Amino acid sequence: MRVIDIRERSIDLSRYRDPSIPSGGLTTSIVALTTDAVRNGRPVIGYGFASMGRFAQSGLIRERFAPRLLAAGDVDPITAWTAMMKGEKPGGHGERCVAVGTLDMALWDAAAKIADLPLHRLLRQRLGNESPADDAAVPAYASGGYLYPSDDPGHLRDEMQALRDQGYDKVKIKIGAAPLAEDLKRIEIALKAFPGPHRVAVDAMNSYDARQSLDAAKALAPLKLMWFEDICDPLDFDVQSRVAEIYDEPVAAGEALFSAAEAVLLDRHGGLRRDRDILLFDPVHCYGLPGYLTIIEALEARGWSRRSFWPHGGHLFSLHLASALGLGGVEMNPLSFAPFGGLADGAAITEGHAMPPDAPGIGFERKTHLAALFATL
Amino acid sequence: MRVIDIRERSIDLSRYRDPSIPSGGLTTSIVALTTDAVRNGRPVIGYGFASMGRFAQSGLIRERFAPRLLAAGDVDPITAWTAMMKGEKPGGHGERCVAVGTLDMALWDAAAKIADLPLHRLLRQRLGNESPADDAAVPAYASGGYLYPSDDPGHLRDEMQALRDQGYDKVKIKIGAAPLAEDLKRIEIALKAFPGPHRVAVDAMNSYDARQSLDAAKALAPLKLMWFEDICDPLDFDVQSRVAEIYDEPVAAGEALFSAAEAVLLDRHGGLRRDRDILLFDPVHCYGLPGYLTIIEALEARGWSRRSFWPHGGHLFSLHLASALGLGGVEMNPLSFAPFGGLADGAAITEGHAMPPDAPGIGFERKTHLAALFATL
Repeated sequence: MRVIDIRERSIDLSRYRDPSIPSGGLTTSIVALTTDAVRNGRPVIGYGFASMGRFAQSGLIRERFAPRLLAAGDVDPITAWTAMMKGEKPGGHGERCVAVGTLDMALWDAAAKIADLPLHRLLRQRLGNESPADDAAVPAYASGGYLYPSDDPGHLRDEMQALRDQGYDKVKIKIGAAPLAEDLKRIEIALKAFPGPHRVAVDAMNSYDARQSLDAAKALAPLKLMWFEDICDPLDFDVQSRVAEIYDEPVAAGEALFSAAEAVLLDRHGGLRRDRDILLFDPVHCYGLPGYLTIIEALEARGWSRRSFWPHGGHLFSLHLASALGLGGVEMNPLSFAPFGGLADGAAITEGHAMPPDAPGIGFERKTHLAALFATL
Repeated sequence: MRVIDIRERSIDLSRYRDPSIPSGGLTTSIVALTTDAVRNGRPVIGYGFASMGRFAQSGLIRERFAPRLLAAGDVDPITAWTAMMKGEKPGGHGERCVAVGTLDMALWDAAAKIADLPLHRLLRQRLGNESPADDAAVPAYASGGYLYPSDDPGHLRDEMQALRDQGYDKVKIKIGAAPLAEDLKRIEIALKAFPGPHRVAVDAMNSYDARQSLDAAKALAPLKLMWFEDICDPLDFDVQSRVAEIYDEPVAAGEALFSAAEAVLLDRHGGLRRDRDILLFDPVHCYGLPGYLTIIEALEARGWSRRSFWPHGGHLFSLHLASALGLGGVEMNPLSFAPFGGLADGAAITEGHAMPPDAPGIGFERKTHLAALFATL
């Protein structure tokens, strides 16, 4: 295929189901790539978006990566990626990795539409996953539980109930924005809705310093959480490993690392334990699928299992990848970051598993509000 | 001061004195900040630019950081920096760090013009450097020696001679773009123009893999180079430390690291030796002066001396900082990256030292071609 037109727009994004609650000015980029391929009499268009929880990448997409992609001629998603990365320097893994990942998502959407296959099936073919496609369902948990600016306990309780009602049996909530004592009460609310060991995870969003990290680890250890995520600064492997020394339950890391080089450093120096800990790298934020695959390869070579990877993202693209690559499971954002998060319209969680949509491409067309947003491009 | 208008433009940049020689499509951002301060009946304007050797940051400046700066109200460069960084997430130190650094440079230019002082004098006051300002001269070396696409030996010889003629007594050339045997001949050309120990440095631009790094280290060791710079991937601390084990002469690192978190990792795991090795962090690329100061503080706390810092950049801003902070020395780009590199018009290198211009601000107005470029904003 050849990419003949690229459109991009930055839009506001909310962490909350009610988008009127202030959410830190988050934005994301939406893109539409028009290809020269024609299906059903119309050009195939691939759609993508940048980020759940960081910022739009309009400038980098428009100025640096879209021009390279438009000039690349006939491509598939892998050769397109190589063309986009031409001349990029080693190091500096921030922002550009998200810009490239956004375009990469749209390239895969287009390629799978051209192949008339759901993306996970195209990837199974290309990446040699021999497991039958009716094994496509992936363990999934619901992500949410941001601190509400008013009546947090009431809102959090309602949110947990809404996620249960959607069929989820595992949940992750945010901590670190409130004092630890308050967060422990918030975790209690989540545990009441999702009782039992290893069903509630907590995400400190890289907010704790050394003291806070260790204090939280001690307080959380008896709760048998699913995992303790993004504890301290993502590059503070010293504190990360000190937590792992005193916290026997699973920890999760890697959401704010964006390259294979950083992944290897995390493994070398972060104290993670291959028998239980969780790797959160976000395929879109890590230069897209080709970049994500270099991370999986680097860590598999160092003794990690694919089952340790639970990609951050909470959207359909991560779900296809987790299914096709045989990863451990996947995040879903059923109530956050609308209209990007969660499953296709009408799709349900079954016994804790999510299924990628059975439509050509990523299946954004099965999410009415998201499809309508893309159509404005 | 209050920033009332911000203009930005992306422009092409060349590594070569002759800009018609292809140079990898490098670009940089130039910015002009108009303040509400008035001097000599005119508003004070601060100027800055992004990068020597990476890419422009138009999008991030226009979409994310300029709006925050314009909304910040009364600021000085430090409070302005805090306003620009508001809501930024931990990790992901690439691109945005350069965008923030670009605006930071212009903020310091404006602040020093308002104070009617050369920047290094303003910084001496603010940062408490008690050494007399007539100690302002800084050890400087000339950077250049990129591989020429045709007749490299002849062009390189001419370039080395031109740098000698400008009074430089130390030089750095690039290696790694040619096979090692050819690079050894290129180093010989540089050594002929700059004979003696520790007067020629080489910069592999992070291009070597593990094998190449170790092979080069063995071949370079007898040459008594000033230093061996940016050897392997900037985050491959394993290879970096294996080189340091077999290479007794100085190595230099840090140009492609952009945060205090990465600087600490380099120190912890990169095998650097505090008695001889060189730290290249670029103040503009590391979120500007406030970010650069966090790196200096973190590494001083770990036992490094300020004399180990030789900031990358090759321009007047780095020169002011090196002077005011009492750093070991500074890079200059007399023939590369025109019109940004090198000293003020008519200024000379004296006994291997460079002196920041004695004009208010950074002194860009003393570089005719650069001032003319900024005036187009």
